[in-house]
Formats: sequence, C-alpha cells, structure tokens
Amino acid sequence: MDTQRIPTIKDINEASLRIKDHINLTPVLTSSQLNRMLNAELYFKCENFQKVGAFKYRGATNAVMNLSDEELSMGVVTHSSGNHAAALALAAKIHGAKAYIVMPHTSPEVKKAAVAGYGAEITFCEPILVTRQIAADEIIAETGASFIHPYDNFNVISGQGTASLELMTEIKDLDIILCPVGGGGLLSGTATAVKGIRPDTKVYAAEPEGANDAFRSFNTGRYIPSHKPDTIADGLLTTLSEMTFKIIREKVDNIFTANDQEIIESMRLIWERMKIVIEPSAAVTLAVIKKNPEVFEGRKVGVILSGGNVDLSKLPF
Amino acid sequence: MDTQRIPTIKDINEASLRIKDHINLTPVLTSSQLNRMLNAELYFKCENFQKVGAFKYRGATNAVMNLSDEELSMGVVTHSSGNHAAALALAAKIHGAKAYIVMPHTSPEVKKAAVAGYGAEITFCEPILVTRQIAADEIIAETGASFIHPYDNFNVISGQGTASLELMTEIKDLDIILCPVGGGGLLSGTATAVKGIRPDTKVYAAEPEGANDAFRSFNTGRYIPSHKPDTIADGLLTTLSEMTFKIIREKVDNIFTANDQEIIESMRLIWERMKIVIEPSAAVTLAVIKKNPEVFEGRKVGVILSGGNVDLSKLPF
Repeated sequence: MDTQRIPTIKDINEASLRIKDHINLTPVLTSSQLNRMLNAELYFKCENFQKVGAFKYRGATNAVMNLSDEELSMGVVTHSSGNHAAALALAAKIHGAKAYIVMPHTSPEVKKAAVAGYGAEITFCEPILVTRQIAADEIIAETGASFIHPYDNFNVISGQGTASLELMTEIKDLDIILCPVGGGGLLSGTATAVKGIRPDTKVYAAEPEGANDAFRSFNTGRYIPSHKPDTIADGLLTTLSEMTFKIIREKVDNIFTANDQEIIESMRLIWERMKIVIEPSAAVTLAVIKKNPEVFEGRKVGVILSGGNVDLSKLPF
Repeated sequence: MDTQRIPTIKDINEASLRIKDHINLTPVLTSSQLNRMLNAELYFKCENFQKVGAFKYRGATNAVMNLSDEELSMGVVTHSSGNHAAALALAAKIHGAKAYIVMPHTSPEVKKAAVAGYGAEITFCEPILVTRQIAADEIIAETGASFIHPYDNFNVISGQGTASLELMTEIKDLDIILCPVGGGGLLSGTATAVKGIRPDTKVYAAEPEGANDAFRSFNTGRYIPSHKPDTIADGLLTTLSEMTFKIIREKVDNIFTANDQEIIESMRLIWERMKIVIEPSAAVTLAVIKKNPEVFEGRKVGVILSGGNVDLSKLPF
C-alpha cells in the first residue's frame, strides 16, 4: 500500500480548474452572534449550498471528468446510500455517462427518489458492506463501468480538497480549518490543500463519538475500522480507508469528537442563528468548537459545513 | 390624511446611506432547481440573514437614527409581538436608547426572551389592538418615549425600502419585484424604491388568503381592515394603515393571495432546495409564483424573503 499514489496540492489545483464551471462557488458566511458566543472568528464554507446539497459533488465531478471518452461510454458505478450516490448520479448525467448505483434496500425513499431522479440505474442490496461490493463488482464485470469509490479514490479526494482551496482564497489568514470526518475523503483533501498552501494553518477534524474510528486510529497510529458505528450523523458512519488514513496520519493536526446530543444542539444553533439548513454530519464541527474552547477561542477558524440534506419530516428537535 | 407626507426615492436613498454600516448587506441567492421547476429567473433577497432575522431591522434602525439626542435619551416604544419588537429593541440598544415594548402576554416565550435579551423593558397586555395602544400611550405619557409604529411610520417605510434598493443595485433588469404584505411597510417601501428607480419593473405583493385585507382593499379601492385574520404566516396578521394603503394604491401593480397549505408547501420547498430557513410570511411569495405561472414564467423576478424566525420545535411539516 505504501506505493499508492496520493494527491498533492497540484492535483487539487488542477481539480479546481477542471470542475469550476460545473460546481457552485459556495459562499462563506459569518455570524456575529456565534462569534460573540464562542469568542472566536468563524468562517463557514457553506457546502450545503453545493449542487446536490453537499461537497460530494466536487469529488464526483472531478472523478467523472478524469475519465476518457471510452470509459465514460461504459458508465460509472458506486455503492452509497447517501450524498455520494446523488452526486455521482448527477455528475454522470451532466457528462453523458450512465450511472449504476448500488443502494441498500433500506435507504430512505427520499434518497432513492433523488438518485432515480438523476437518471441513475439503482441496484438494491442488503445493507451490508460486503454485499454492496459484490453487487458493484457484478455490474463492473457486466458493463465495464468505472468504479468511483465514495472516498478511497485519488480524484475524489482531489475534488473534495477544492472546498478549502476556495475558502483559503477568500479568507487569507486562517489559524485553523475544521471539517467533519467519516470515510476521510473530505478530510484528506482538506489537509492536502491546507498543508500545501499554508502549512502553519492547523487542520482539525470533528467526528461523532458513535463512529470514532478516525479518532482511535489517529491516536493509536493503527488503522482501527469501526464496528457497528451508530450516530445521528448519517454521513459519517463510514470508516477510513488505508489511503485516507495514510494522508490523515501525515497531515492532520488533531481529531476531536462530540456525542449525538451535542451534535443536535449545534445543528439547531446553526439553523436558528444562521438561518441555514445543515445536516447532522455538518454540525459535528460546531459541537467540537463548543466543547473545546481552549483550542478555538481567539482564533480565526474556517469551518466546512459539509451538507444540508435532511428529512424535514424527521428532525431531531 | 391626504396631506400626510409619504416617503420618496430620495428618502430611501438617504435611509440606505444612514443605516448601511449598521445592517447586513444580505446576499441575493438563486436556485437553478427552482428556476427550472418554475420556468423563471428568481433572485431571492435573503432578509432572513438580516440582523434579528428579518428586514424589520432596516426600518427600526432608520427610525431610531432619525431621532435627536434628546429624543433618544427618552427612549422608544412600540407594540408588537414579532420581528419589529426585536428589531426596535436591538436598534435602540445599539444607539444607546431605552426600548419599551408592549407585547401580548400570549406571545411565545422565545419571542419574549429575544426582546428581553436585547435589554428592552417589556409591558405585557391583553392580545387586543386597542389594549396595546393604550399601554403604549401610557408609557409615552410617563417617559416621553418616541412611538415607532411597526409600519405606519415614515422612517420605518423608508428603511424597509432599502432592501429593494440593494437588490436592484445587484440585479439590474428585473421584470418584477415581489414581496409579502401584512401591514404594508415593506410593500410601501419596496414600491417607492422600485418606481423611483425603474418604473417599468412591476411591483407585486403576496398575501395570505386568511389575512387578505390588502388584496380586498386594493381591488375595491376602499380601505377594508381585516377582522379576525387567521394564517400560519404570523408576520402578516396585521392590517394596512391609511398611509401604507395610500402608497400601495398608487404604486403597486397587483396583489396575489395563497392559502396556508400552499404557503407551507412553498416554505418546505425553499428549505429543501435552497437549504435556508425562512418563516411562513416569507414563503407566501413563492406560493404566489407557483400559483400564477402565467404572470411569472419567463420573467426575471426579485423576491424579498422577509425573514427566518420560526420555532423549530413547532414546524408545520
């Protein structure tokens, strides 16, 4: 695995140029109320305003745009029940490729509908990782489609890094950039972008206590996958890959955790004070800031609000 | 009443210069999904991102900044259970004046807390308009405080007009500007700004069916106050004043209505697609656009999203 090529700042710069006409240049919002409350300067990069409502569209677009015409003609495939599935489905549609999405049959109807709405062909499977991979492998054998992993993918990671690239272009002298970590695609891309541009800026990650494989792996130095992760932050149930763990070990400064109650409170605080809709996976960042004032007080902090896809009929408050 | 002085575009321009360092220059957002769905170009002026979460902070700030030092020293008073109360309380605090707010004792605790949090002195009364006015009059007699009506006030109207001024500066050639109407402060200011700058742009208003006094007054040419208004759009329960009706008759091109079910659906649509939190009073605009495609299709439409203050524990979906 040590010979596996990992993205550099050059790859993220190239990704940024490649995808810029296809993505939303999302705004950076501030809240004087939250700044007063937390005694910090927070700059929220609003990827909830990204296409399909999440940063995932960056990585999916970059991966699809890296395919040759021949590869595009055979389509793309992934297994995901969440934002990556919708992102890949839309990116494929925009670039004229067929998308095959393997989803657990237990996925919420609203997510199935979103993916189908982008014209993707859905294959339902049992909600077990190994079953998903088998279903994806069968599609690849049959169609020759390119597999685009949600995060264990060079071009996906490069694409996710473009959010921080934009944030650092807009806000010059951040002390810290904080983002959530699930499978580690966003965190790997963020760390690569930040350390490539301004090595003094700290890169911190926020993770739910109920799915803290990155926290445990980072602190022990050993790759410890999650077993039975359980958190309201449904976008962060995934576990690091060897590639993302390698990048995170090398480039991330620290990882903090918060529990579900803290995540829900922070989600509500952002909805109420900032009037924006974010999903629990995005709110774990603010939960970590509230919980660790000694780390964040007096600092200029860039915060990646990763997405805004929630079922409004099932809010936790 | 015909001799009553009403604001002109000059007053709105002056208000804009006066308040600009004290308010948020709110963003104009677009949604390619909504544009496709409605076959129109919609530009949303996001006053839900304004201070205190509503455009009301513009008018309250302008009114307070128009007071002399002597007047400021005696304080300001209003009766309101909603966004104007919070706006006046904060504007007074910022400019060193005491605020006396008359609120129905039936107001939601969250609103009482917000107003108290800005340091205002609250007087509770029965939830009847005449009782509110008596309570306010008593405070004026006692303290000499200046009464700042929520909308029947020259400087408040001039301040509310600054939202459209900003919108027209950012988006040059709008065919239509659409805003909600309750008491008519926002609509009067909007119409004065629009007709003063670009008379060809149509000014339309959106009103809940359950509080349609502006619709009925506009269409009959007679001032018909609402009796027992009832709508989920709690910011629009108020009824026109003679001053706002006069301006609206002269400068507004049409008024459309939508029912509560349509308002709720449109509110949800904006939350889901745009990932922003707006209150029902703001959503009546989109409800009217959806309901009248022949009016809005193919047009460039500026939409004032008036506010984002909702109780997240009591959502209608």
